[in-house]
Amino acid sequence: MPYFNLFDSVATELNIVEQNLITSIDTNIDILHEASVHLIHAGGKRLRPAFVLLASRLFNQDITNAIPMAVALELVHMATLVHDDVIDNSMARRGTITVKKGWGNKVSIYSGNYIFAKSLAIVAQYNRSDLLEIMADTSVKICEGEIIQMFSSYNVDIGIKNYLRRIERKTALLIAVSCQLGALVSNAPAGHVNNIEKYGYFLGMAFQVTDDILDLVADEEILGKPTGSDIRQGVITLPALYAMYHSKHREELREALASPEQCNLNTARIIDMITDSDGIDYAHYVSQRYAVKAQNQLKKLPDIPEKQVFYDIANYILDRDY
Amino acid sequence: MPYFNLFDSVATELNIVEQNLITSIDTNIDILHEASVHLIHAGGKRLRPAFVLLASRLFNQDITNAIPMAVALELVHMATLVHDDVIDNSMARRGTITVKKGWGNKVSIYSGNYIFAKSLAIVAQYNRSDLLEIMADTSVKICEGEIIQMFSSYNVDIGIKNYLRRIERKTALLIAVSCQLGALVSNAPAGHVNNIEKYGYFLGMAFQVTDDILDLVADEEILGKPTGSDIRQGVITLPALYAMYHSKHREELREALASPEQCNLNTARIIDMITDSDGIDYAHYVSQRYAVKAQNQLKKLPDIPEKQVFYDIANYILDRDY
Repeated sequence: MPYFNLFDSVATELNIVEQNLITSIDTNIDILHEASVHLIHAGGKRLRPAFVLLASRLFNQDITNAIPMAVALELVHMATLVHDDVIDNSMARRGTITVKKGWGNKVSIYSGNYIFAKSLAIVAQYNRSDLLEIMADTSVKICEGEIIQMFSSYNVDIGIKNYLRRIERKTALLIAVSCQLGALVSNAPAGHVNNIEKYGYFLGMAFQVTDDILDLVADEEILGKPTGSDIRQGVITLPALYAMYHSKHREELREALASPEQCNLNTARIIDMITDSDGIDYAHYVSQRYAVKAQNQLKKLPDIPEKQVFYDIANYILDRDY
Repeated sequence: MPYFNLFDSVATELNIVEQNLITSIDTNIDILHEASVHLIHAGGKRLRPAFVLLASRLFNQDITNAIPMAVALELVHMATLVHDDVIDNSMARRGTITVKKGWGNKVSIYSGNYIFAKSLAIVAQYNRSDLLEIMADTSVKICEGEIIQMFSSYNVDIGIKNYLRRIERKTALLIAVSCQLGALVSNAPAGHVNNIEKYGYFLGMAFQVTDDILDLVADEEILGKPTGSDIRQGVITLPALYAMYHSKHREELREALASPEQCNLNTARIIDMITDSDGIDYAHYVSQRYAVKAQNQLKKLPDIPEKQVFYDIANYILDRDY
């Protein structure tokens, strides 16, 4: 994906993060080590570490001190993925087998707990209770979001508020916290920490809406998972919500989205109804609005060259076309 | 159980802990609230809160400050219980897993995560990174222990070292940390924190060995679960380990303990072989040795009346008979 290049200014540090992810899982319990290393090798965009590092660089040229924090935030993200895999029965994530498929439910649960606990232990090394408090509070909110997500499946009566709350907990919160913690380890002033945190929040919202669009329109090779995965799992996203109100087939669509069987068997037909309804355009508009809101936060920060990359990342959303 | 009375000196505070356990789960997500409250009402001996409070009282008469910590430690314990209850779906693989069953697991995983995150958020309120660091490090070790436990089931080749490591992670660690954190919130001197932590460790080991004996010899009504539950679940405890070396039926016993089917069907016969082998006496001796080690740590603490209850708790182990 093109926005990888946007992280070039912290590429050296991201490489160190990658190595440290492995060494952070330094257990001598074989199965735990294997499951965790497998998960790390499965890769990912390392969005959260990148935001920690970039936000840290805004307030301090030397971002060595931000590297453990970047590792910790990727570990939190990974821990939620392992637990999500148990839950969703997903057989494949990012093209490789999931921990669940390889090792079973119990190992997935304990690996997730282990990785999460490790991330806290890393943050504890900073000897700053403010950082750990943010991690703890964020985790509480993420857990609440997972439950909301779970009870929203196949529920065609949920509205946009529920959707926004779900993607906030699923994505925006952790990107916001990545920016916040990156700024905090560089001892940024409170007002600026708040600005970059809000930037992360709005950008995270924009990212997730974009992802939800791509799930419906992108090719399987680009996604690394089958097109329409959300629909198959009963996850009702913004384009679908729009279509349930505005599609000329809205009755048929509602019925289909409420039925696990139809979501699985008639996925292509459901996607057609959504894309025919301008649902994609609407979601595109919403993602752009969030990207603009993110950029507005940047205006409140000092005018330094390190700020440009944050504009560029938001522009990547603004310039997209579907 | 008689040792409930040993907690009389902190009964008032334990009542507040009980109320705060409920209010600490202050989510507006219904299912999360219900699952958590259900768990709290299921009760338990509240051993960990009691040790937090008693250890705190050793160094400060006013233990109000220790109450949130006591709540947090019970929440950690509860979170591990919820995750232990999640069962492997492998047996349902042939058919499709029912939605109900899937949701049962989901709720368990997210409730456990939520309760754990909540406990961290409570500890974060102390604004002391040393306390949170201990919580994080302990959680890492508990996760490792859960994996060890899992891979030790029905494994008749494991030795005493594996057993001790398992019960350390399962019980001793959290009792030790309860004592440690209780002392720390009362700002005890480092040396004394260390003594009471070690007391908790040795006492926790003694408790778990005692529990493992009771699982084989106590009546169902006293245990609150069927006699021989460990054997049925393939958990090989100290009396069984001893018997596998010293029973005259050691070959038969080894074979039985390695077989999930026999563990389930021939539980009574397996218990007989273990009890006939002096395995109970041996475990009894080990538990007493740990209780003495615990008491030895107390000698290093100042000679104050609040110390007596810690002797009494260890004496409760020393005076047992089977």
